[in-house]
Amino acid sequence: MINNSVLDAIYNRRSVRFYTDELVDDESVKEIIRAGSFAPSGLNNQPWRFITIRTPEIKNNISELTHYSKIVIEANVLIAVMLDTDAIYNRDKDLQAIGACLQNMLLAIHSLRLGAVWLGEILNQKDQFNKLLSVEERYELMAVVAIGHQTKKTLSYSRKNIDELIIKEI
Amino acid sequence: MINNSVLDAIYNRRSVRFYTDELVDDESVKEIIRAGSFAPSGLNNQPWRFITIRTPEIKNNISELTHYSKIVIEANVLIAVMLDTDAIYNRDKDLQAIGACLQNMLLAIHSLRLGAVWLGEILNQKDQFNKLLSVEERYELMAVVAIGHQTKKTLSYSRKNIDELIIKEI
Repeated sequence: MINNSVLDAIYNRRSVRFYTDELVDDESVKEIIRAGSFAPSGLNNQPWRFITIRTPEIKNNISELTHYSKIVIEANVLIAVMLDTDAIYNRDKDLQAIGACLQNMLLAIHSLRLGAVWLGEILNQKDQFNKLLSVEERYELMAVVAIGHQTKKTLSYSRKNIDELIIKEI
Repeated sequence: MINNSVLDAIYNRRSVRFYTDELVDDESVKEIIRAGSFAPSGLNNQPWRFITIRTPEIKNNISELTHYSKIVIEANVLIAVMLDTDAIYNRDKDLQAIGACLQNMLLAIHSLRLGAVWLGEILNQKDQFNKLLSVEERYELMAVVAIGHQTKKTLSYSRKNIDELIIKEI
């Protein structure tokens, strides 16, 4: 295996679900969003939009839309990643671009020595999410990233060996 | 702006479309695939599969499926990223996971001082792509990453200012 700081971040990033009370400062939140916005997108349409959520009452309300309530309540800040459906180019490619944006955010968070988890199950309640936050229907919830300072080491998921993933080499 | 090597890679990565004849070694190709495979996925379903393509005749045949023929022919190696539809969990989330996998690959490539571009337009011919390479229908083409050693600096795309991207801060 080759070694460099970018590969280290890719291999050592973990989903972090337990956070201290410590503040995630605004500068870090802006940097995480900026990192997300540097993902590539089809025709450079940059379809991602963001909502940052810190207010405890609002986090409490959001926690009722998901099975992962504890994470939503305990995270110091949430960043909701929204698809601007007015900016749509091709839904499949836009969803891929949003995934690339999310990965940049997760790697940026790791590089800032913060912890985060990408929450997707809340998409089952995406319409309620928009209503709760008074966000126009034009914006479609894609994921919520819960962010905080990590308390304890979290388990890593196993990965398939790359030989199982390569269909052919031609 | 905060500065670290991961953020540097995120901000300085560019789509590279012009390549020298220099070989991209197998170790690098494996590392790029390994980096992709460390993306997060819903329920850790790891739906990504890969095809590596080096053979000039096959690259020539693939070049006929896209407007970006020159890139496909001149890239030293192509990695096709496929969705294993037998591993599907939720199409929207699987497409996002594939996007995260692609972004890891692009950042790994940048960290290895190679250049690459994410080709999506070829998806218009995805069925023909599978036929040409005798790949089962079960695998759906998601993108082709063209990789080589960079010749000349390529232009970067402008990005929206993050203030335009934040819907609300609450």
